[in-house]
Order: sequence, then structure tokens, then C-alpha cells
Amino acid sequence: MYPRPSGIVTLTTDFGQRDPYVGIVKGAVLRASPKVQVVDVTHGAPPQDVAAGAFLLWSLIGRFPSGTVHVGVVDPGVGTDRRLLAVAACDAYWLVPDNGMIGAVLARDDAHEVRVVDVEHLRLQPASATFHGRDVLAPAAAWLAAGRYGFSAMGTRVTDADARDLVFGGDRRVVHVDHYGNLISNVEADAIGAATAVQAGDWRADIHRTYGDVAEGERLAYIGAFGLLEVARRNGSAADETGLQVGSTIELLGP
Amino acid sequence: MYPRPSGIVTLTTDFGQRDPYVGIVKGAVLRASPKVQVVDVTHGAPPQDVAAGAFLLWSLIGRFPSGTVHVGVVDPGVGTDRRLLAVAACDAYWLVPDNGMIGAVLARDDAHEVRVVDVEHLRLQPASATFHGRDVLAPAAAWLAAGRYGFSAMGTRVTDADARDLVFGGDRRVVHVDHYGNLISNVEADAIGAATAVQAGDWRADIHRTYGDVAEGERLAYIGAFGLLEVARRNGSAADETGLQVGSTIELLGP
Amino acid sequence: MYPRPSGIVTLTTDFGQRDPYVGIVKGAVLRASPKVQVVDVTHGAPPQDVAAGAFLLWSLIGRFPSGTVHVGVVDPGVGTDRRLLAVAACDAYWLVPDNGMIGAVLARDDAHEVRVVDVEHLRLQPASATFHGRDVLAPAAAWLAAGRYGFSAMGTRVTDADARDLVFGGDRRVVHVDHYGNLISNVEADAIGAATAVQAGDWRADIHRTYGDVAEGERLAYIGAFGLLEVARRNGSAADETGLQVGSTIELLGP
Repeated sequence: MYPRPSGIVTLTTDFGQRDPYVGIVKGAVLRASPKVQVVDVTHGAPPQDVAAGAFLLWSLIGRFPSGTVHVGVVDPGVGTDRRLLAVAACDAYWLVPDNGMIGAVLARDDAHEVRVVDVEHLRLQPASATFHGRDVLAPAAAWLAAGRYGFSAMGTRVTDADARDLVFGGDRRVVHVDHYGNLISNVEADAIGAATAVQAGDWRADIHRTYGDVAEGERLAYIGAFGLLEVARRNGSAADETGLQVGSTIELLGP
Repeated sequence: MYPRPSGIVTLTTDFGQRDPYVGIVKGAVLRASPKVQVVDVTHGAPPQDVAAGAFLLWSLIGRFPSGTVHVGVVDPGVGTDRRLLAVAACDAYWLVPDNGMIGAVLARDDAHEVRVVDVEHLRLQPASATFHGRDVLAPAAAWLAAGRYGFSAMGTRVTDADARDLVFGGDRRVVHVDHYGNLISNVEADAIGAATAVQAGDWRADIHRTYGDVAEGERLAYIGAFGLLEVARRNGSAADETGLQVGSTIELLGP
Repeated sequence: MYPRPSGIVTLTTDFGQRDPYVGIVKGAVLRASPKVQVVDVTHGAPPQDVAAGAFLLWSLIGRFPSGTVHVGVVDPGVGTDRRLLAVAACDAYWLVPDNGMIGAVLARDDAHEVRVVDVEHLRLQPASATFHGRDVLAPAAAWLAAGRYGFSAMGTRVTDADARDLVFGGDRRVVHVDHYGNLISNVEADAIGAATAVQAGDWRADIHRTYGDVAEGERLAYIGAFGLLEVARRNGSAADETGLQVGSTIELLGP
């Protein structure tokens, strides 16, 4: 029922690159289990932006070996009484604060199972009130990845986790702007139907298969690597040209 | 003839640090072969700047264990019909788009061998038209690094790869400005001859052996860690002081 | 007496993210010993800021498996005759330039032992005068981590290393500003005594246990994840609000 642990722990956080936080979390994983392989996904989520973290975690579904443990830390509630969750869903494990960051993953797997990380039972009484990524999630992830504890040992099963889908819930809109200035929407491939173009404010682009279908510098929309509708400029930045940003609503236009 | 695979895959890209792309490519490597060791070189190449990517790949020659697989992705042509190449050269393997990114490496090894990655033969039909790093290069690199396929299984040998040397071809010029503001030129140590100084526009610096030969804050030129002539300020930024940038031409001045 | 090597090498540098330097250092570690596990702590120390590097190294004490080898490279003196040190302290090994970067670690362990890396004995004659991280520290770290050489083989023991404590020496002050805008001071938990507030210039904050004790957007001081007094705004940036920066002095206020 639960996937066999892959021995891999991934990290997706808003820690940034200039502090020792990322390294210290890796150290905590390796102290708990030196044979685990730690993989950085990104530490560039906008600080304390839970919806951005939710998109990043969703983007990992199916992308790592079965039974990989994904740690997600965008945690504006650290230092309050928000819970920490261990989740089995989509053929992987997920360790996250209970703030909606895992909602888009839960929505993809009706057979998901959520447990509240039981710090006392796991003898993980945090050394700090402000760095649960290091004190709780890292060792719990290491133990799970190494098979020292099974998933059911993580804590009590609950059904009241914050399951808001911060990515696909709500309007059709831009949910991520990437490093190239591509605007990634929450419109999935199978929702396109007969639509032939995308409108966002005054800005409009025809839907094509890929960059090669338009001339250099031209705008286009297409189903991108996430399986989502993206708007882009070939060899340019759609974000710069359009001024659209995360949250900007978009419409599909029919033939 | 081909070096024995080292089990190591390196990544050199323009993916930046804020998206999940780097993590997803690592996941694709690990899905193809969980025992491969993935090493980030940099994801900070300027977006879609193929010449910058060519410098970065060239800088890796001889720096990793024999038989390491270097994946390079600066790929403005993704989504067109440009080819993907597997290259054996300089005691290593290289997986890159066919856009000149590998030219400076090819120029260093007359015995290089280039093959077009055969996605059908390798059963790598891409899941997307816009993320061949994930869908093709990552699994091909993993298989090569793990010894699952030999180099000759990558595809048909070709001799018409884009072999332009975007680093050493053309003028003497700045080819990289590093994080400290050091200006790295494409002038190799053995080209210095009797020259005693470097001129670039109005700016001039004497050639010394190393930083310690000048006072703090003084400018100098020297053969740096790449074996290339660099211009720098001791404990300062030559880029800020001079306004020189990538592409600025430089001259050697005789005694 | 010396901890058994963990097989792990960590890297803490000011190399930044856009050059190939980080990758090349990893390659040098793996060429020296392919089985070593290389872990990035951060490459975002401010360029040539030795005190910042000292804080980062100090922050790693006790955070990795016993016998981990920490390489620290913030090295404005590269290319001069400054020495390179191998240090055994705090249940770990440290390889650093002799510039004070290791002072705060030395101060934490009276039984520390310092050796000057003997490049000739180790046959590490540097290939460059400007990249000792690659040419000396990386292979020495790999050999130490892999157990190929014991610590005493690193070179001659010395007692005149630059042991200035650049973190805890001097005034009570801000020693690090993190990515979230939290201001981390050099005031340790046990120095708080009966103090109930922190003053820095015109700015003042009450000491609380954690974020949850104040309302959103409110300022507070607390003992953070480093065991040091921090000043912060709940879900905001204290750095932006206060204008305080590294070096700003702070005072404790009594009840």
C-alpha cells in the first residue's frame, strides 16, 4: 500500500541561498541517516508564499523514483501551534507544515493518507521554536527514506488537514512565472478543448504546439512541460512584455 | 577507446534557482538510474546565452573523474527541430543541444566523436516539446553514466555538428565576468609571449603572477585558475571599475 | 582522539552561483576520492567577507555527522603567502585559509588542533596561484573524509593560527541578516539573564519565546535556531523596517 522508500529526500523551501539553513537541514538529514541521498529541488520559493510552495510540490508528482520523501518548507506559521504533516500520496511521501502547501498534491490522489507528525513519539522534541525544518522534518524524512520507520509510525492519522488546493482551486490564472519570463497557468491540457487563443487583460496569444511554430520574438501559448497552458515569447520574456504576474486571470478564447 | 563511465552526471544550465526545473531534471536522472551521483555545476548561465554555456562546459575539461557525463542545457532552440548530441571528447561524455555549446570542447580533442541522440531507438519519445533536458538528456545521461548503454548506442555518428568555437574563436576578448568582478579573457597562457600588459579601451593593467604582487585595490592581469589571462583588482571588482563586459576586446602590449 | 571521518565534505564559500567554481571544486573532491559525499552549505557569503564566513562555519558546529570535513573558502588573501589550515575541533574537521575564518570554531573547543596544510608533503603543488580551494583544499578534504590520510598527515602542528573570534569577539551586535530579514545577533541564550527587551538605535523589541507570541506584523526578539538572540517581525522583514545591518550594535534592556 505504501511505496517502498527510495532512500532519496528532496528539499523544496523558501530558505534562499545565502544563509546556512539549507546546509543545516541537510546535516540534520545526514545525522539521522547518513546513507540517505539529499536532493535540492529549489530554495527559491518567494519567502513565506505558501501558494508558490504548493505549486512547486505539485510539480514534483511522478518526477522522482517511487517512494521518494519530499520535504516542503514554506512555513510562515513556524513558532505557532500549526501542525506538521506526513503525507502518503501520488506514490511518494511528503513532509510539510499544515498550511495548504500540500493541497494540490492531495487533490491528485483520492487514496492519500495524512498523519500528524508526532514529535514526542518520535523523540523529536524541537530544539528551537523557529526551525522545525531542521528539528523535526529533516530527521523524520531521513528515517522514512531509510526505512527506519514506516509511514504509519509518523503519527496519528487525521482527516482535517488543510487541503485547500492553492494551485488549481479558484480562477483560471497565472500560478508561476519562471526564470525565463514564461507565464505558467493552472489550465490543464485537457481543459483547452476547442480554444485557440488565450486572453489576459489586453494581451492575447494564439495557442500553438511549441516555440518553433512562431517566429523569434513572437508571443504564443502552448502546453508546456508541466502539462499546463503557458504563455511565452519565443526567445524573450512574456512576463516583461505583458506585465502579467502570479494571480493575473486568463481566459480561453474559442475558434 | 571510450572512457569507462564514472557514475557521475553533472548539470550546467541556464535554469536559474527559483523554478523546480533543476530538481525535476535530477529526478529524471534518478528515475532512470537511482545510483547515479548528480552534481550541480551551475544553473546561472545567462538565459539562452549559448556562448556563456560554451565557456562553462569548456571550463569542466579535465576537472571531473574520467568518464563523467556532463549535461549542458542552454537551449533557445528547444521546441524547434534542432538535434540533441551525445559527444565523447576530452576523456568525458557530453549531452547537449546542437547549437555550438559544445564547440570549444570539440576543438580541444581531435579524436572527439559526436552522435545524434536517437530518441526513438532509446525509447525517449519526449513527453513535452519544451523540456528536452528532462525528457531526453537526463535519462540518456543516467544510462550512459550507469553503463546501461554504451556511448555508441546513443545514436548515429555524425560529422556535421555545430562545431563553432564560441569561446576561443574570433577576437581576443572578455569571455566571462565572474562573481567577484574578475574579467576572464580567451587569451591562453602560452599566447602571452613577451607581453607585459593588457589594454582594453582606455584601461590598462600590467601582467603579474598573482594578487600578492600588487597592493590592495590595485589592478592587475595574471593567468588565472582557468589557464586564461584575467584582469582584476586586488580585493575589488575590475568589472565595476572598468565597465568592461563579456565581448569587450583586449590587446596584449609588448615590453 | 580525532573523530572517525564521516565520508562527507561540506562547502561554505563566497563563490556565488553563476560561475563554474563550485562545480570545479566538487570535481576536484570527486577526482581525489569518488566515494565522498559533497554537500553544499552555501556559496552566498558576501564576497571576501571573512567575518561572514566565520559566522557560517560556526553555525555548522554539531550539525553534521561526527567527523565531517567542512571546507570554508572566503579568501581575499589567495595569491599571497597566507597559509592554509587543517583544523580538528568540535568533533569535525575544517579546511580553511588562515585569516580568522575559523576563529569562532576554535573558541568553542579548547582541545582544538591546528595544522598547516603541507602542500609539498601531500604532493598538492597548486596548479594555480589563485584557486587554492580547487587545488589544495578540495583534494585534502577528500582524502581526509575518505580516510586516505589521517589528520596528523595534513602537516605540521602550529599554535599561531589567526584565532580572532570575528563572531563573538567585540561588541554585542548584529552578525548576520538572513534572507527573511531576521537580524541575528551574537548574544547567546545564556547571556540574556533578566533582560526583557532589545534596543538598537531608536528601535526596540520585547523578548518573547517565539513568533506565535505576537500578532502578525509585530516586532519581537527571541532566541532563534542558532541559539542566538534575533530580532524579527512576524511575517515581515525586520531588516527592511529597522535599517539595521551587520555590525549594528544592540543593547539588552532590563526589567
